[in-house]
Amino acid sequence: MQLLPTFKDIINAHDRIRAFIHQTPVLTSSNIDSITGSHIFFKCENFQKVGAFKYRGASNAVLSLPVGEAARGVATHSSGNHAAALALAAKNRGIQCYVVMPRTAPKPKVDAVIHYGAKITFCEPNLRSREETLEGVVAATGATVIHPYENFQVISGQGTVAKELLESCPDLDAILAPVGGGGLLSGTALASKSLKPAIKVYGCEPANADDAYRSFKTGKIVPSVDPKTIADGLLTSLSERTFTIIRNHVDDILTVQESSIIQAMLLVWQRMKIIIEPSSAVALSALIDNHSLFAGKKVGIILSGGNADLLNLPFHAE
Amino acid sequence: MQLLPTFKDIINAHDRIRAFIHQTPVLTSSNIDSITGSHIFFKCENFQKVGAFKYRGASNAVLSLPVGEAARGVATHSSGNHAAALALAAKNRGIQCYVVMPRTAPKPKVDAVIHYGAKITFCEPNLRSREETLEGVVAATGATVIHPYENFQVISGQGTVAKELLESCPDLDAILAPVGGGGLLSGTALASKSLKPAIKVYGCEPANADDAYRSFKTGKIVPSVDPKTIADGLLTSLSERTFTIIRNHVDDILTVQESSIIQAMLLVWQRMKIIIEPSSAVALSALIDNHSLFAGKKVGIILSGGNADLLNLPFHAE
Repeated sequence: MQLLPTFKDIINAHDRIRAFIHQTPVLTSSNIDSITGSHIFFKCENFQKVGAFKYRGASNAVLSLPVGEAARGVATHSSGNHAAALALAAKNRGIQCYVVMPRTAPKPKVDAVIHYGAKITFCEPNLRSREETLEGVVAATGATVIHPYENFQVISGQGTVAKELLESCPDLDAILAPVGGGGLLSGTALASKSLKPAIKVYGCEPANADDAYRSFKTGKIVPSVDPKTIADGLLTSLSERTFTIIRNHVDDILTVQESSIIQAMLLVWQRMKIIIEPSSAVALSALIDNHSLFAGKKVGIILSGGNADLLNLPFHAE
Repeated sequence: MQLLPTFKDIINAHDRIRAFIHQTPVLTSSNIDSITGSHIFFKCENFQKVGAFKYRGASNAVLSLPVGEAARGVATHSSGNHAAALALAAKNRGIQCYVVMPRTAPKPKVDAVIHYGAKITFCEPNLRSREETLEGVVAATGATVIHPYENFQVISGQGTVAKELLESCPDLDAILAPVGGGGLLSGTALASKSLKPAIKVYGCEPANADDAYRSFKTGKIVPSVDPKTIADGLLTSLSERTFTIIRNHVDDILTVQESSIIQAMLLVWQRMKIIIEPSSAVALSALIDNHSLFAGKKVGIILSGGNADLLNLPFHAE
């Protein structure tokens, strides 16, 4: 069994999901370029269906299932973008999706998953209850569990973001992506280094949730313990597969402070008039904090999603 | 002297400004379509330079000036998008721009105008001080005053928004634009009815600043008196030229409540992941409040700008 995807699997994923996803635009901002001294190409997955790149990996996983397996549905535990992504991907294939969510999950997240037709089973907000509840759902339904990143087809699907970006902008010197569980970053690294071996690939992470940074530096997975960051999509720890790919193909991991993340998010909102979620601002924030590293360079930044909580924004009048 | 522009003047304006403006995208949202029951084509002037359609009219006015007149610069009083638009248009032609602003103007607006190289003269926040100060600036400099909408070339420039929209989407049944002073609406009506006589053109206005509605219904200009609305770009009264064009070419004016404006703005932010200012939400709000009028129709909506005050948003957690 092939444990790790290669670029060929990303190509196959792209062929499989192409008709279902948005080929998202690549935007530029002369204003932000003049502030940073770089030429930035923003790959706008905030405009992807369900508002995040997660829809690519979820779609690829759902579409890859053999017919018999698919008929029993798919299941996951998530209170974030992966749950909505898997729900819509399942709906598009006409199969059932089961989502386990903590009973403390925010209402907009619950509503989004219901909107896409998934069945929710609530659990207590702890790891044990979550896993036991998911096991119960699987035992009762025979559904296939689709992990948000420790999954061959999910990683392959996430790699299509960088593939599209480099097909549009083949001259990039570097590419920056946020890292939480590492699905996006590992897919990005695989696609980027295959299409352009000389490109530099950076993972970007909140200093307050720097488990990927510490894992990368020490050479073994350091779990994320009670991280506190506004970048709520980046709380998870690396997995075996994502860590292996990241170790082999990523050049470095850059960490950023919370205040830098909020400033970068505000900058994109003000200058580009687009909405990105805090996790998406981490990559631009890393570029700004390390601007000398990217001076005069052509840099791709993956804006991973746009599901910001508009009723609880971190911007405040002075 | 030709007082009112025709479609030919809008064509000339477009040729004049084309190299300086963004041809802004037309976006759709299957999500908002399913909520409204219409097929909406959003013309995204929030992505225009300086973040608003105003840059079109200001550019056309500046580029239309004879060389000798241009050399003495341009002047206006405004604390909004027109000031920034005129400042950038003047900068691009290499001439000076003088802006009269009330000393109470918000700092971000002042900073934007300074950023584009204009010279600011502050006045007291009342009509008399504003006009006297502007007269003083003109007497001292010989600059040409460019009014934000009571100006032949400004109206012609604003008409290029609808021209582009209908060139992209010739099948529209109706087009909706917000109305403040009427520069955008009059240009929109001229362009739309010339390109497609059967199209319906609607002006959209806050009920709390319904001077255009009352002017339209009574047949004479009713000035706006102390209007209170979140749509701060729509506080101004119609002028002779804009009212004449609106009377002749607009089908109706629809008014909307403040709560509808805020809901429509939130809907666009949440579903489309783009930032629009409150004045821009007025047209979608009018469509939602009058959805039976537009059921099954192809409707163009002009999103006029994206300069929302991100530090003072009207969204609140329940």
